[in-house]
Amino acid sequence: MQAVAVDVMGGDRAPEEIMQGALEAAREQDVTILLVGPQEVLDFHLKRNGLASSNLIPVAASQVVGMAESPTDSWKDKQDSSIAVGVRLVKEGRADAFLSAGNTGAIVAASLLMLGTMEGADRPAISSLFTTTQGKLALVLDIGATPECRATHLAQFGRLGSDFMAKVFKYDRPTVGLLSNGEEENKGTRVVKEAHQLLKKSGLNFIGNIEGFDVPRGKVDVIVTDGFTGNVMIKLAESLSESIFLSLKQALGASPVARATKMLWGPPIRSVVRQWDYSTIGGAPLLGVNGNIVMAHGDSSAADIKDGIRLARQMITEGWVVHKEPGILAQGGVHLT
Amino acid sequence: MQAVAVDVMGGDRAPEEIMQGALEAAREQDVTILLVGPQEVLDFHLKRNGLASSNLIPVAASQVVGMAESPTDSWKDKQDSSIAVGVRLVKEGRADAFLSAGNTGAIVAASLLMLGTMEGADRPAISSLFTTTQGKLALVLDIGATPECRATHLAQFGRLGSDFMAKVFKYDRPTVGLLSNGEEENKGTRVVKEAHQLLKKSGLNFIGNIEGFDVPRGKVDVIVTDGFTGNVMIKLAESLSESIFLSLKQALGASPVARATKMLWGPPIRSVVRQWDYSTIGGAPLLGVNGNIVMAHGDSSAADIKDGIRLARQMITEGWVVHKEPGILAQGGVHLT
Repeated sequence: MQAVAVDVMGGDRAPEEIMQGALEAAREQDVTILLVGPQEVLDFHLKRNGLASSNLIPVAASQVVGMAESPTDSWKDKQDSSIAVGVRLVKEGRADAFLSAGNTGAIVAASLLMLGTMEGADRPAISSLFTTTQGKLALVLDIGATPECRATHLAQFGRLGSDFMAKVFKYDRPTVGLLSNGEEENKGTRVVKEAHQLLKKSGLNFIGNIEGFDVPRGKVDVIVTDGFTGNVMIKLAESLSESIFLSLKQALGASPVARATKMLWGPPIRSVVRQWDYSTIGGAPLLGVNGNIVMAHGDSSAADIKDGIRLARQMITEGWVVHKEPGILAQGGVHLT
Repeated sequence: MQAVAVDVMGGDRAPEEIMQGALEAAREQDVTILLVGPQEVLDFHLKRNGLASSNLIPVAASQVVGMAESPTDSWKDKQDSSIAVGVRLVKEGRADAFLSAGNTGAIVAASLLMLGTMEGADRPAISSLFTTTQGKLALVLDIGATPECRATHLAQFGRLGSDFMAKVFKYDRPTVGLLSNGEEENKGTRVVKEAHQLLKKSGLNFIGNIEGFDVPRGKVDVIVTDGFTGNVMIKLAESLSESIFLSLKQALGASPVARATKMLWGPPIRSVVRQWDYSTIGGAPLLGVNGNIVMAHGDSSAADIKDGIRLARQMITEGWVVHKEPGILAQGGVHLT
């Protein structure tokens, strides 16, 4: 059985929502969940939920990394944090994947330092899946692991993203676009222009530069950008769609007639809100490191955690990263504490 | 009377929509409009509209810069384009401002080369006004004139934006934020981190880094970023809000019940669409050059052009750039052709 380690201390709504999502996943999905967190937190929640399921394994981690802590400090001072322990489980082949909604920088640092980078990837990239107007999933990377990129890093992100969509989502020769401030190949910063030339020669299905306009429209399957621009963009998209739906709610709520007829327009509007909710896909795979690592949104609910676990399982099933000794846990459920 | 030169050949819907907007502005607003374009186009439209208003002055320009032409080539080969002539009118003090929906790069190049930069501004910045959830206007710059910035350029953009909002929109000590991939001052690229330190010491009302989340929420009055990130961001915002409203229209249109009750939910939804339409503010002032230059959206309608003229007039009234000999035209309406 696949084993997914979950950081129960990561995220703004930890540990309650994370625990609940993990417990539900263990009940509903064909997966072993390794719950990583302080012993007393694990004991309390497992007791409260009266659970002694064979596919739930508590793994103690004595420390917790705060959401605002420096990644370097967290690595130096907290080798027994839920993040460090979770990544270590993957490194040791005891978990096939690790999911955390915790401190992004700390997850990236621990993954890099313990798992190392994949062949052909000098830098890690956090990738984010989102729905487009085409109703298809697209992937954007990097959204924050590597704010300052060289051209070679961007070209490598193109390959990572393309491989990911081909392998994990069975896209046939995914189209790749390089985000720039214009379609022409002479548009962009020096680094972007250089990356354009590298991508052109890469053998990937590279269609050239794309612009901000093209992102929601789903012009390409894989959007390549540096972790600075990607981070700004994805946060803006999330907040803008939220802001628009908030305005809609307020405007419709302020109209007595509209309020009284909510049953008429409510369902179609709700479907649109779901379509454009940038946080529903379930997690951001950290690509370029030697392990299946999924980062969930800091604001993750139990449902988001379940989605994240589902995504991690898909990465395992499709063999995104195959660990040396898969299924160690399936052969008897080793307690690691 | 204020004189605004308008490029009748700029934009995807030129010359019809531009002409119509300019003619309506001349009729409705207290302004002299200098219509810049090929003689035959001007003649045709002025004849068709039967207009011989004293505040409409045709100015012939024999060449037109295409929307996709290289700025350098357009400058070298087309010194008599509607863009070059429009900027020249400002330089010579015959117009107090110039508005164009044409080729962005060509407008920036012509403005830089003919007008030069303002004191304290080494690079130009296209700035874009937008509405936030606070219902207040905010300014983001640069959105495309200077894709590759040094830290000093970013700090200068902070001052330009702050001065603009204080002078033209009467904001009291506008708050300034530096766009980054995290709030902490150690987040961002090297250039952004260095710019943070410069802005801190600038005497501006600098509140620190802001993130993509904060843009629609209106956390600050002035958002400082490089022309690459700003361009991606503003185009994404425009396309995302469009995509969301398109989805809403389709979802509501597909529901027979919702369709039949449109009069109930239609008006509040339309107010929200207007609020979040990134193209309604009327133009993007080009800051840092020695002249009042407003760039209208490439897709501008007649109404957008009227909005752009209104914004240009506000810049003139509040003295954004004061030309040496204002009102040359008011003293008799010189024909320049």
